[in-house]
Amino acid sequence: LLPLIPDARYIYLGDTARLPYGSKSHETIARYAVSSARFLHEQGADLLVIACNTATALAFEDIQAALPIPVIGVVEPGAQAALQSTPLSKTLSFRPDPERAQRLEGGLEKPASLPTPVDPPLNQVLVLATAATVQSHAYTRAINALNLDAHEKACPLLVPLVEEGWTNHPVTDEVLRIYLTEALGEAPNAKTLLLGCTHYPLIEPAIRRTLATLNHPLTIIDSAEATARAVATHLHPDNNQQPTNSIHQQPTTSNQQPEIAFYATDSIEKFQRLGSNFLGQPVTEVNLIDLGG
Amino acid sequence: LLPLIPDARYIYLGDTARLPYGSKSHETIARYAVSSARFLHEQGADLLVIACNTATALAFEDIQAALPIPVIGVVEPGAQAALQSTPLSKTLSFRPDPERAQRLEGGLEKPASLPTPVDPPLNQVLVLATAATVQSHAYTRAINALNLDAHEKACPLLVPLVEEGWTNHPVTDEVLRIYLTEALGEAPNAKTLLLGCTHYPLIEPAIRRTLATLNHPLTIIDSAEATARAVATHLHPDNNQQPTNSIHQQPTTSNQQPEIAFYATDSIEKFQRLGSNFLGQPVTEVNLIDLGG
Repeated sequence: LLPLIPDARYIYLGDTARLPYGSKSHETIARYAVSSARFLHEQGADLLVIACNTATALAFEDIQAALPIPVIGVVEPGAQAALQSTPLSKTLSFRPDPERAQRLEGGLEKPASLPTPVDPPLNQVLVLATAATVQSHAYTRAINALNLDAHEKACPLLVPLVEEGWTNHPVTDEVLRIYLTEALGEAPNAKTLLLGCTHYPLIEPAIRRTLATLNHPLTIIDSAEATARAVATHLHPDNNQQPTNSIHQQPTTSNQQPEIAFYATDSIEKFQRLGSNFLGQPVTEVNLIDLGG
Repeated sequence: LLPLIPDARYIYLGDTARLPYGSKSHETIARYAVSSARFLHEQGADLLVIACNTATALAFEDIQAALPIPVIGVVEPGAQAALQSTPLSKTLSFRPDPERAQRLEGGLEKPASLPTPVDPPLNQVLVLATAATVQSHAYTRAINALNLDAHEKACPLLVPLVEEGWTNHPVTDEVLRIYLTEALGEAPNAKTLLLGCTHYPLIEPAIRRTLATLNHPLTIIDSAEATARAVATHLHPDNNQQPTNSIHQQPTTSNQQPEIAFYATDSIEKFQRLGSNFLGQPVTEVNLIDLGG
């Protein structure tokens, strides 16, 4: 978001005391996510970005119902990006689909208007995500609504491996080989791989490497990038945001330094360390807050 | 506990909504552990067993201060069991150690009176535990107080591997090989290996296998077993509880079926599934409670 929208004020909350969400139940995730969202609204947020796949998949509607501000999650932008990068058969014909609107969930999580392909084979999108995200089938719903086939694969060990710092490690490669072999066995027609968890982009090189050894290259889509572009489009609809690689660079085009307030519910030190790794710039001033529990 | 004390009424709480504790800060762990302990006291508990290494290591004193009932944790029984199984050099002489009492923390977590060996080399106890347990150095304090040397090794991936069900899996063997090679490099004189986390006994066969391939056999001690015996001794001090293998068997010596009430703060279904695996008998009736958060 920083390079795309450097003129915004950012309020970031890491609910580190109650993480991980990805292994918990719908009810607990929704309660935690709504209380986190309410905190951000109380701090003055005009727009809420749910930058967590699990919270989006399981609590998007709860959060939307609880807050009077626009809410953008990562699932629908990820599905849209998968559509844009998935090669559709040129022989497909198109027809309007009157049932399609009902299949979509409300709010800003709506796909752009697109013709509806008929006559499969449709290309399959393979989604890697946490157990809770997969069980919610939010990605399958969002991807099916775009008339693509989806297959979801829960990868519970990937977050712990990233948090252990083993992003470039033979054990991670072996775990990826196992998960991806299982997933590709179940979804052999997959052309696109959607990274449906915040942690997975940190092992994208390992994922590419593993796909190469399996002789099964896939186009890799990162929900986070797609979401940042969706937020930029929402705030500045007249700028036609083109996908570029510059999203990972620091904001240099503006003299204005984005104002960022960081909040965490557990250990400031760990948040500073991991947060700096994820953001690619030092995270120094972090405020410890208590959301109960 | 069930085979050792079949005549007790058990109230068990799994704080599943806020787990894992092992990757969090002292303050958060203490807050969660004290609120969990208070709940059990409110349900009528006469004795509290902290059956979690992280909660014992970081919140034993907080829990003890918060409750008017006896509290038994897993750290001191584990250290005691390590002492009993660690071969001491026959050439050691003994002297009283006046500073020893100060090094011990209060309450029931006190070692039995023992002569104090002088003249190292002392045999080293290697402790595998979560990051938070290791950072607390509670095991090192408890083991040093018994005049044994301790070396602690954080193993953050082992809990996720057990929860993934990969208890007998080449990836787990490889992760153990890495962790144990590092640990034995730092503690080459270790004779005893203490499993300082509830999940690790489920991969004890893999740990034995890995130690064999490293050509470094160690006596393996399970804090949970030692704690069960400490609880039995506390409740029935006249019975001389001998260590036996029968601790893993179902209670068959009494006609009285132990009464167990299970509580969890998240998903009943997951608690039933994992709980049955850990307990070795079906966990059916589980009550969902909300401890806030």
